Amino acid sequence: MTQNASSFPPLACVILAAGQGTRMKSDLPKVLHPVAGASMISHVLAACAVLSPTHVVVVVGPDGKEIEQVVAPVSCVVQKKPLGTGDAVKAARKMLDGFTGDVVILFGDGPLITTESIQALQRKRQESKAAIVVAGFRLENPGPYGRLITDKAGKLTGIVEACEATSEQKEIGLCNGGAMLFDGARMWKLLDALKDDNAKKEFFLTDCVALAQKEGGAALEVIPSDDVLGVNTRIELAQAEKIMQRRLREKAMLAGATMTDPDSVFLCADTRIGRDVTIGPNVVFGPGVEIGDRVDIRAFCAIERARIEAGAIVGPFARIRPESYIGAGVHIGNFVEIKNSRIDAGAKINHLSYIGDATVGEKANIGAGTITCNYDGFRKMRTHIGAGAFIGSNSALVAPVAIGDGAYVGAGSVITNEVPAGTLAVARGRQANIEGWAERVRDGKGDKG
Amino acid sequence: MTQNASSFPPLACVILAAGQGTRMKSDLPKVLHPVAGASMISHVLAACAVLSPTHVVVVVGPDGKEIEQVVAPVSCVVQKKPLGTGDAVKAARKMLDGFTGDVVILFGDGPLITTESIQALQRKRQESKAAIVVAGFRLENPGPYGRLITDKAGKLTGIVEACEATSEQKEIGLCNGGAMLFDGARMWKLLDALKDDNAKKEFFLTDCVALAQKEGGAALEVIPSDDVLGVNTRIELAQAEKIMQRRLREKAMLAGATMTDPDSVFLCADTRIGRDVTIGPNVVFGPGVEIGDRVDIRAFCAIERARIEAGAIVGPFARIRPESYIGAGVHIGNFVEIKNSRIDAGAKINHLSYIGDATVGEKANIGAGTITCNYDGFRKMRTHIGAGAFIGSNSALVAPVAIGDGAYVGAGSVITNEVPAGTLAVARGRQANIEGWAERVRDGKGDKG
Amino acid sequence: MTQNASSFPPLACVILAAGQGTRMKSDLPKVLHPVAGASMISHVLAACAVLSPTHVVVVVGPDGKEIEQVVAPVSCVVQKKPLGTGDAVKAARKMLDGFTGDVVILFGDGPLITTESIQALQRKRQESKAAIVVAGFRLENPGPYGRLITDKAGKLTGIVEACEATSEQKEIGLCNGGAMLFDGARMWKLLDALKDDNAKKEFFLTDCVALAQKEGGAALEVIPSDDVLGVNTRIELAQAEKIMQRRLREKAMLAGATMTDPDSVFLCADTRIGRDVTIGPNVVFGPGVEIGDRVDIRAFCAIERARIEAGAIVGPFARIRPESYIGAGVHIGNFVEIKNSRIDAGAKINHLSYIGDATVGEKANIGAGTITCNYDGFRKMRTHIGAGAFIGSNSALVAPVAIGDGAYVGAGSVITNEVPAGTLAVARGRQANIEGWAERVRDGKGDKG
Repeated sequence: MTQNASSFPPLACVILAAGQGTRMKSDLPKVLHPVAGASMISHVLAACAVLSPTHVVVVVGPDGKEIEQVVAPVSCVVQKKPLGTGDAVKAARKMLDGFTGDVVILFGDGPLITTESIQALQRKRQESKAAIVVAGFRLENPGPYGRLITDKAGKLTGIVEACEATSEQKEIGLCNGGAMLFDGARMWKLLDALKDDNAKKEFFLTDCVALAQKEGGAALEVIPSDDVLGVNTRIELAQAEKIMQRRLREKAMLAGATMTDPDSVFLCADTRIGRDVTIGPNVVFGPGVEIGDRVDIRAFCAIERARIEAGAIVGPFARIRPESYIGAGVHIGNFVEIKNSRIDAGAKINHLSYIGDATVGEKANIGAGTITCNYDGFRKMRTHIGAGAFIGSNSALVAPVAIGDGAYVGAGSVITNEVPAGTLAVARGRQANIEGWAERVRDGKGDKG
Repeated sequence: MTQNASSFPPLACVILAAGQGTRMKSDLPKVLHPVAGASMISHVLAACAVLSPTHVVVVVGPDGKEIEQVVAPVSCVVQKKPLGTGDAVKAARKMLDGFTGDVVILFGDGPLITTESIQALQRKRQESKAAIVVAGFRLENPGPYGRLITDKAGKLTGIVEACEATSEQKEIGLCNGGAMLFDGARMWKLLDALKDDNAKKEFFLTDCVALAQKEGGAALEVIPSDDVLGVNTRIELAQAEKIMQRRLREKAMLAGATMTDPDSVFLCADTRIGRDVTIGPNVVFGPGVEIGDRVDIRAFCAIERARIEAGAIVGPFARIRPESYIGAGVHIGNFVEIKNSRIDAGAKINHLSYIGDATVGEKANIGAGTITCNYDGFRKMRTHIGAGAFIGSNSALVAPVAIGDGAYVGAGSVITNEVPAGTLAVARGRQANIEGWAERVRDGKGDKG
Repeated sequence: MTQNASSFPPLACVILAAGQGTRMKSDLPKVLHPVAGASMISHVLAACAVLSPTHVVVVVGPDGKEIEQVVAPVSCVVQKKPLGTGDAVKAARKMLDGFTGDVVILFGDGPLITTESIQALQRKRQESKAAIVVAGFRLENPGPYGRLITDKAGKLTGIVEACEATSEQKEIGLCNGGAMLFDGARMWKLLDALKDDNAKKEFFLTDCVALAQKEGGAALEVIPSDDVLGVNTRIELAQAEKIMQRRLREKAMLAGATMTDPDSVFLCADTRIGRDVTIGPNVVFGPGVEIGDRVDIRAFCAIERARIEAGAIVGPFARIRPESYIGAGVHIGNFVEIKNSRIDAGAKINHLSYIGDATVGEKANIGAGTITCNYDGFRKMRTHIGAGAFIGSNSALVAPVAIGDGAYVGAGSVITNEVPAGTLAVARGRQANIEGWAERVRDGKGDKG
């Protein structure tokens, strides 16, 4: 599917992330807003990484510290003043010193770019020998997008902003997708020739296309319009999320997962799902989830940083929190929370339970309403439940505590001491019946129950 | 955005709500069916209220008592017999006695009309001096809608029902949206001239357009087609809900809230959401919710009549019920219900708990499975938990009861008496271990656990 | 709506289910993948059953045992080798010996076919007297579908595969829907004339159209494109689910149910819903659910094999499991699981409870956190709670056990013995307060709570 990267010249990736993103109405830098569980810029970096680039540079603004931390160890350079996209790319010059391969310019707020589309730009450059390849896309109503102007031979001669387009040019349905790929050997000369003699007093990267006409010309590669979606508002962020989710869902379904309602299943880019897995409506996967074959995940589940082995049944209404391991054939039922625990094969935790910082042995049965009391207000401590143990309903297991293999805890017990293997433990009050009480209460003589 | 109302003539609003709504298959009057948490007619009234009308009149049918109660203190008049829309407006005559400003006619089953569209009608009347302004809308396939007939100058000359339209008229894509704005000084004369010489023996308000040709003419104002959606079936009710929800979601996102999946977030018209709030998939807001800045509401939450302060984390799987206050930085976790309670800053209620009729002090920690026993079968009573208190998991707090500041309740306790500040309270049975029990049970000699 | 079946000739249904479905990436035979809670093939069988066919035959492949079990008592025949659709139908010959009525050929992976569409084929055959009626459908961009070739009189003369179509034929928007209805008297002669002289070396049923030109001709009946959707991948399975759900939701809404967000309500083909029922967002109905009038089902509920009587309130966050009966006016609240239980009229179970294998009497009140301990690790046992009983919060009822009418269980009790009518039962530890403990712990001298 992906062409062998080695057939192309070396690749450098410059990712622009200096925009302020005021329309996001946020204290978080725009490119760090998440899509499918990861920051937008990390999706761009991931699409690049598949191609094994020799250089990757992120261009940030003066307040880019937060971005630098997220993208590390990828290198960042600072664009000191917002003097336009052309100026931003120049900020990467020192990092690309002497590089003469292909340089692709991408956008940190464009999380939907795919490896396939970058490869298409590489391929077009190889075929066309042009100084620049511009990613174009088609829209029926291109509205505010810059239009791509081509000559009769289909070569790209210029990019015109919508606001400056003639009415004839406005009829062009071919738009500027933003992403561009330069011949690194000719790039700096073009950038140095850029001028800021425009209303905004900025250096526009798009002006390189006109300048390149004498330097080998510019070529055009049409890529899917989804790939170039740029995010400037939370509405566009939600659109990007929607497209990314659709991609992830379709990939999972084609690999053999059934989703009753794919539109309500939320995946992360790193979610791994086996074959003959069924996923009900309204399931939310956070980062770091691996699902084995034939797992049945029912409606209304939230799962994060967990591995679920083959044949397990989870939900409805289950929450699996980070660092959890759910063994083969385990049943996790409704209103159950599992956190930082290992549940071994065949164990059942079917109802209203909290199992945190615990290990549960094979085929153990945890009754409804069981709570592991893992926190005493000072420290978190662990609970061990042995293989084949039976924990009666509504029990509290006060950690640190161990329940042996095959042990049995009576319903409603508060277990504070070890229960050896095969032992029955009961820890609850004795029942006292006070006859005729209801009648006396009705007469105003009863106590509070 | 909204033009200063004072630049227009005084406004009267007549809202027609006498239709029987048999296709709703319901015992509830049609205009009382809810959209975004409020009755359809209340949305129409709210769109009017922004314009400070001098008169608002709702026209109901003979069985309109329920509607009168909902819209009070807005006045209602009764249309005694279902003799058509023209007759319905006449029922409002006494209430508008002597009024010579603008009279807008709206529909109680058209909950999507906006203040902006009513203003557009007002503006058009001011500019055109026409006796009537009709709200039109465009559809590619107008099907059953009445078509608006205009002359060469673009003036409206008539409205023709789809069933009576010539094939040439059927090609017209401009439809009658229903809403109309009359010059109050000329309105009653037009209404008095209406005739019921048609198949249905009804007085049609739309016939005023033809009659108005000699009284200053009629004008047309095209408004968005969403605004004029009329609800006659539950399917159309669901469509209205969908459009209303989209409007509310987009408003919240543009103001700085991130929604992973806006399509699964349900808002009410009065929901207030701060900046840098994140809302996961499947969150349902009932009426009366205020969310502060930087609140994180995770997947699967239902929240109603509650205030949530800045930086709080809620969910997944949390339900916040009416009259609840969630302080700054509070954590409300999974399978937790909060009802009629005040949770102060920094407190944590992370798992499987019911906190009802309670106050929880700052930084208190409520363990998993904690239940406030607020009802004894006769009365509801309150629980007070002090600042920094620690409630061990699976405890029951039997109200009325107070847990002092910094007090500590042992896991699995049933607390019926006050726990003074700094005190440890334990109220549970002692643990007894019966060794070898499991083996004996297997041999048929054990008791029930 | 449905024409009287008796006006048509006798009907036989042949359902092809021998395809291997490798693109499903599944161990489950393709036609057994579920849509709306039932296998795809069962939907096809249900659409046929309404028409009271005299014969129904399912054609399976050599590994069809699983399918045979699901469709029983419907008869199956085995197509031994995958020699094409024409060969598959021939496998049914013995079962249809001597039958001369209409034979409709349907597809087990086409779950959306409707009774109405089959009737349309019957009607067309009756009118046209053609040997074959082919179900056609229209698409704007028919892409890979076979095109239907008609003569000037509109009679069907052939079917051409997309890959073999001329560019002129590719412009045809009328496609082959797959379903066909044969005159049983002429069918075997046509099938016997089929040849496998094509690239795939298969006998194509569609070739019968050309062969039929000398046997009375072929007719065309255009049916909705949804009806002929064939499922080959999990993505198409999700599309079929979506269309089926839309049909079921619209039917329920037109019958008088309000759905805030129909797109998030999942129904089964057998779900029965009363009038003035309201259903919030995100409700999942499994098989076998009946909902009475005026029931209010709130957001986030999962309900399966249960009857819910008039005026009950369920959810949010409730799970009703199989064999449950929820009486009139009952309230089932959040994080509550009901399993195999009868809850009588007016009872309330509002919070965080598990009620399994129980009966709950009229107007009983079950406190928050109540657990029926119905399983002791060996057997499932029953709990009886009398009318008007009050179960204090966080109680465990250890089955088998009976709580009498009007009895009262103190909060936090573990009830192991009968509580007679009108009796107060308390079964919990006494509270001990240890003052100054928190301070000593801070100094490192306290015990674990």
